[in-house]
Amino acid sequence: MFVLGVDPGLSRCGYCCLQAAVPVARPVALGVITTPPSSPVPARLAELLDEVRMLFDECRPQVLAIERVLFQTNVQTAMSVGQASGVIMAEAAQRGIAVVEYSPNQVKEAVAGHGAAGKEQVTRMVQTLLDLPAPPRPADAADAAAIALCHLAQSAALVGARR
Amino acid sequence: MFVLGVDPGLSRCGYCCLQAAVPVARPVALGVITTPPSSPVPARLAELLDEVRMLFDECRPQVLAIERVLFQTNVQTAMSVGQASGVIMAEAAQRGIAVVEYSPNQVKEAVAGHGAAGKEQVTRMVQTLLDLPAPPRPADAADAAAIALCHLAQSAALVGARR
Repeated sequence: MFVLGVDPGLSRCGYCCLQAAVPVARPVALGVITTPPSSPVPARLAELLDEVRMLFDECRPQVLAIERVLFQTNVQTAMSVGQASGVIMAEAAQRGIAVVEYSPNQVKEAVAGHGAAGKEQVTRMVQTLLDLPAPPRPADAADAAAIALCHLAQSAALVGARR
Repeated sequence: MFVLGVDPGLSRCGYCCLQAAVPVARPVALGVITTPPSSPVPARLAELLDEVRMLFDECRPQVLAIERVLFQTNVQTAMSVGQASGVIMAEAAQRGIAVVEYSPNQVKEAVAGHGAAGKEQVTRMVQTLLDLPAPPRPADAADAAAIALCHLAQSAALVGARR
């Protein structure tokens, strides 16, 4: 099974596609999609959509795990994250890819054991859990990997609970 | 020229396609796209995208005029409006349709003469400006008509300024 983790954003959108494997999940794609803040928003959204389509075509994920942003203090940021996540979720749904949303706290708890974990701690835990030689960079890509790992952990828990 | 005005939203998305004509613009499509709040957000966004694609196919607008929401007090509403507007703007940009955003105040000023106009006043002005036998309903469709009218007024002003 392939899970695509996404940390949505218009300026920087982190992604990480993980192949569920034992004993450790294998990252098959990891990076950040950026769009130039100097371009008009509609053109940036169209560019993001193009990149996301290529990612879906390459990775063929069964699941899109995406961060749900509930308590952005800045309304303008919430709008912008909403626009990016809307484009990505609509494309996934139209392809029949299951979409699961996780809150930042759920993600931190899943990879670091507590919801108050800092960015650096999440990055180090992602490195450990994926058995990587170096911490994944940039931070947005590491966050996306954490979101994908959170989904794998939740799925494993569900499978365990059903047994 | 055809202008598609859109008042973006996930539960209710108002639209109105106007054909620029003299002495009055002619509405060729007017209504509201709704998606069920009981469905998951990704499915609702995909449904909205399907409907918007049909609207673009039918009306073939040169311009999408869409409301820019800057000061939503509720962050959850801002996210949801952002998701809907993101999906619509990305689709428009990918089709080469020009996208122009207008603030609620710009729209009210353009159709009612002042930015503090109420919903009912906007609806009545839309009825007058489009020479309709009855006030356009529901309010979201009237708002979308006001956004399209705002764009026509701005374009006329620009043409006038160039002369």
